[in-house]
Amino acid sequence: MKVLIVFAHPDERSLNGSLLEVAVKQLKDDGHEVKVSDLYKMKWKAVIDEDDFLNHNKGERLQVAAASGGAFFNNKLTEDVVAEQEKLEWADTVIFQFPLWWYSMPSILKGWVERVYSLGLAYGVGEHNETKWGDRYGDGKFKGKRGMLLITVGGSNTHYSARGISGPIEDLLFPINHGILFYPGFDVLPPFTVYSANTMEPKVFEEWSEKLREHLHNIETLEPIKYRRQNGGDYIFPSLELKPEIGDKNDHGFSLHIEK
Amino acid sequence: MKVLIVFAHPDERSLNGSLLEVAVKQLKDDGHEVKVSDLYKMKWKAVIDEDDFLNHNKGERLQVAAASGGAFFNNKLTEDVVAEQEKLEWADTVIFQFPLWWYSMPSILKGWVERVYSLGLAYGVGEHNETKWGDRYGDGKFKGKRGMLLITVGGSNTHYSARGISGPIEDLLFPINHGILFYPGFDVLPPFTVYSANTMEPKVFEEWSEKLREHLHNIETLEPIKYRRQNGGDYIFPSLELKPEIGDKNDHGFSLHIEK
Repeated sequence: MKVLIVFAHPDERSLNGSLLEVAVKQLKDDGHEVKVSDLYKMKWKAVIDEDDFLNHNKGERLQVAAASGGAFFNNKLTEDVVAEQEKLEWADTVIFQFPLWWYSMPSILKGWVERVYSLGLAYGVGEHNETKWGDRYGDGKFKGKRGMLLITVGGSNTHYSARGISGPIEDLLFPINHGILFYPGFDVLPPFTVYSANTMEPKVFEEWSEKLREHLHNIETLEPIKYRRQNGGDYIFPSLELKPEIGDKNDHGFSLHIEK
Repeated sequence: MKVLIVFAHPDERSLNGSLLEVAVKQLKDDGHEVKVSDLYKMKWKAVIDEDDFLNHNKGERLQVAAASGGAFFNNKLTEDVVAEQEKLEWADTVIFQFPLWWYSMPSILKGWVERVYSLGLAYGVGEHNETKWGDRYGDGKFKGKRGMLLITVGGSNTHYSARGISGPIEDLLFPINHGILFYPGFDVLPPFTVYSANTMEPKVFEEWSEKLREHLHNIETLEPIKYRRQNGGDYIFPSLELKPEIGDKNDHGFSLHIEK
């Protein structure tokens, strides 16, 4: 397989840097091709603005989605964005690797998503009308590719358990897994989460590394999270709410959007 | 009251810009003092890196949390960050206003949080040991202040309802409301969410504006979301999981962390 790792940590000497090394080695040992977009090293521009759309008249009102589509369809995106879109096209599997900062991805990676996910590529794809609301959530341009999160977290695993104070990790990651990966069509693999990241003894690091090697060794066969496809029959149109027969009617929240 | 609005949209001629105007006028009409941090206009540096810590030796390994605390306690933060921290100190109420992009805040605002929320100010506050895990989730330096989200969303409200395909809006906002506002001590007010933001007729805009004026007119008396305080007796130490008597034992997810 062809694997793209989008890496968002400022220092390669960090735990994240060490895990990246473990990941790249394992993937290559298994015969995969690997590319890494090391966003800090690339000095990635994190903020989407009018400079991103080469056909936008400076100073005119910026409607981000419209400008994004206008630049995408007319080949007026900047070189750095085009290069990342080409890597996305190349890859069979995309891994976002980052430390969980304030319960989400670092701004530099969020800005990668905002700039690289053009309208026409990652959203606004397919017909949008009263009976069809685009090719998204399971369909879209990235259908057939696999996406996965590889993250480190400062707190301990119990803080992120089903009843943990920070909220269950799978719910905290839902806006990313479901909203950023599944939305444009990725099959979303179970994330790999390293806890208690701030102070880690070498022995514990070795244990995590071994688990990571095993996880990645199975990357081709790991079962994706069974998110319900928007156009798979589970949702009412145009409200896009789950049909009444799905789940307990008193049930609510993210887990309803996963097939049992 | 003193109200700080942290505004994250690239164009003041946008729907967000118009709503900001409505908000500032209403707050001032009600006698409040208002400051606005317009992040795009300020060309806010969105990415946290070694340049943020003036006492950090360039090229040495960057451990972000440690460096953040080191700079905070030694007055070695950059001027732009110090200015925002002073506004935070000044404010009784902080409003984050932004368009929901990819189910979270724009990178420029995420970067504001990462850079302005220093260790020692927003986290790493209070004793951390086996029986106490800091002053956070309801305690912390921002205790006594109110925080609120004012957001626009492209999709319609049904897409974000209890059984909507994107997930319930209150769950999508939990990582921000609970993880970014409640964590350092803010009382979190109900968010104000404008739906179907991409194409809005003047008449509909007027309806939203009226609702916003009313919401803000009540900003001093609005009841905060009743998140459970970490140190309020509901959690087991040191696992920080909810005590067994709280909620249905089969229940899970973010809503458990709100008092019924």
